[in-house]
Amino acid sequence: MAKAAFYEGNKTFTVESVTISPPKDDEVQIRVAYCGICGTDVHVYHGHMDARVGMHRVIGHEMSGVIHAVGKNVEDASAGDRVVVRPLDHCGECSTCKRGLKHICENLKFLGLDTNGAFQEYWSVPAHTIHHLPDGVSLAHAAIVEPLAVACHDINRAQVVAGEDVLVIGGGPIGMLIAMVAREVGTHVTICEVDEKRIAYAKNLGFNARNAKDADLVEQLRNDTDGRGFNAIFDTSGVQAGVDLFTQVSATQARICMVAIHTTKPTIDLFKFFWQELELLGARVYEDTDFEYAIRLLSEGKVNPDDVITNKHPLDDIQSAFIPPKDLSMKTLIAVNPEIN
Amino acid sequence: MAKAAFYEGNKTFTVESVTISPPKDDEVQIRVAYCGICGTDVHVYHGHMDARVGMHRVIGHEMSGVIHAVGKNVEDASAGDRVVVRPLDHCGECSTCKRGLKHICENLKFLGLDTNGAFQEYWSVPAHTIHHLPDGVSLAHAAIVEPLAVACHDINRAQVVAGEDVLVIGGGPIGMLIAMVAREVGTHVTICEVDEKRIAYAKNLGFNARNAKDADLVEQLRNDTDGRGFNAIFDTSGVQAGVDLFTQVSATQARICMVAIHTTKPTIDLFKFFWQELELLGARVYEDTDFEYAIRLLSEGKVNPDDVITNKHPLDDIQSAFIPPKDLSMKTLIAVNPEIN
Ligand SMILES: [Zn+2]
Ligand SMILES: [Zn+2]
Ligand SMILES: [Zn+2]
Ligand SMILES: [Zn+2]
Repeated sequence: MAKAAFYEGNKTFTVESVTISPPKDDEVQIRVAYCGICGTDVHVYHGHMDARVGMHRVIGHEMSGVIHAVGKNVEDASAGDRVVVRPLDHCGECSTCKRGLKHICENLKFLGLDTNGAFQEYWSVPAHTIHHLPDGVSLAHAAIVEPLAVACHDINRAQVVAGEDVLVIGGGPIGMLIAMVAREVGTHVTICEVDEKRIAYAKNLGFNARNAKDADLVEQLRNDTDGRGFNAIFDTSGVQAGVDLFTQVSATQARICMVAIHTTKPTIDLFKFFWQELELLGARVYEDTDFEYAIRLLSEGKVNPDDVITNKHPLDDIQSAFIPPKDLSMKTLIAVNPEIN
Repeated sequence: MAKAAFYEGNKTFTVESVTISPPKDDEVQIRVAYCGICGTDVHVYHGHMDARVGMHRVIGHEMSGVIHAVGKNVEDASAGDRVVVRPLDHCGECSTCKRGLKHICENLKFLGLDTNGAFQEYWSVPAHTIHHLPDGVSLAHAAIVEPLAVACHDINRAQVVAGEDVLVIGGGPIGMLIAMVAREVGTHVTICEVDEKRIAYAKNLGFNARNAKDADLVEQLRNDTDGRGFNAIFDTSGVQAGVDLFTQVSATQARICMVAIHTTKPTIDLFKFFWQELELLGARVYEDTDFEYAIRLLSEGKVNPDDVITNKHPLDDIQSAFIPPKDLSMKTLIAVNPEIN
């Protein structure tokens, strides 16, 4: 028997004992060490995704762990291997898969939303989704690989290069990770954020940070680039004000990476796109190479997960882990089996 | 003395006799053969650009001609050379020029709007703006080089490759030229247009053409790509309906090239950009290489200018040339000196 946390609707999780069934032939079964709470998990908790995830669902996907058992068709993986999971299961049949773009497969299943996830002790996943961890990366740190891979994908989509001026709109966990990767690439990074605590947090990490509520925000940001505008802009905000901002502070041929989920259709200054030859690039999840990039950044000490991991809770406390703390919180981890770190 | 047509405001041109002054040291003086009427010129005619162009201004920039005289600093050009003009004068000093993007220079002067243009017999321009014509390209045909270079720039920006499905929203002269270049690249081209005469015109040129007013337009267009959606979409329409359409019929990672000038801020489905990893690419004017590409397409017979040139008027008739004809009109040329063809 093992513990699993089930989402039961209406902001409620129950932790129950479940029997451990062996992995299927093409699966690996992982003993979960840590699993972070994603913004998507918070959406589930608030009931916004009930139609998709259903009731009595185990969610969670930002995980790390050790392989416990492997299905009989699985090669290149053994019990005891330290791994993370790229939680995407593609169909292999659609025209997008056939073009090699499996991460945006037209029938993509997201593990931990469309299937059971990692807020449980033993998690079985398709073997093609695992990435091995190098010795130097702890399992607590490795729980950050999935959101860091999002940031790596965004940086790759925007083709950011050293020496450029980069603006990150929104200083939440993904914005902060994008800023860290952009700085590691060798760019000059500015973060724009509304929350005073997050602004202070960003400054404490050494970033130039601007308050999005300042009346002279656009002037401040233009001065930050000596009037040239930003070469790459990441919108993690998902609000009209972000869309208004990015066309006001862009350099010619700037790449604007759309990371946020816009739930309504904002207005946009398409004339500025024409005039400055701007590029807007949607960026969703990650590819295999983004996971390898994220793991390498941790392994080489180029990104420090402790700069974003602010809270840890045991699995039994998952209910309280979803209640927003009064203090600033970036990334909360559920310590499912911290002893196997 | 020579003839020149002056825009005098309020939909009025006057044709006057002017003295011919020699070119400046860095200029070439061209005897103009033909000059097409651009959509921008029509905007000037309607008084929408009076603040920019002023009164008593010679406009026109889609021209061809023969060099009449060269300034004393000019190399690589001689009297008698058959040329077209890339009507862009950049500053060379701004951060965009320094990044090599002179066509979107932050202080760009557009010849024939910000300076006098080619609706006159003798036109002096900076020598760096001329492109020589090969023998096989007539001056009447060469007047199409400038709008064709716009289409070439759009195709290059969208990185269109053979085998792709391409949608052109709007079947005016630029839309038609984009369609011609896209077909020449080896793509499957569909044109979407509201005007019945233009739809018939597009079909007559061998294109798949859809009526944008059809209630089942989206379904028709999705069927045109067997449900995959279009890989590259060119918006020449500049209206909300075009912006609504392109996110409804896009393939995953489609490139949407923004060619149109949007005078208001439309709403846009940014969720679709995220979900399908779409790219929106602004495209303005052209680079040197786009002019060379356009000239090569004419020289090799890959695009036939007579497919878009529908009307010719002598310079003395410029006033009536700006009155829209009842029949379908694509591109109207002013035959300034047709005898030098
Ligand atoms: Zn996540
Ligand atoms: Zn697929
Ligand atoms: Zn033009
Ligand atoms: Zn310049």
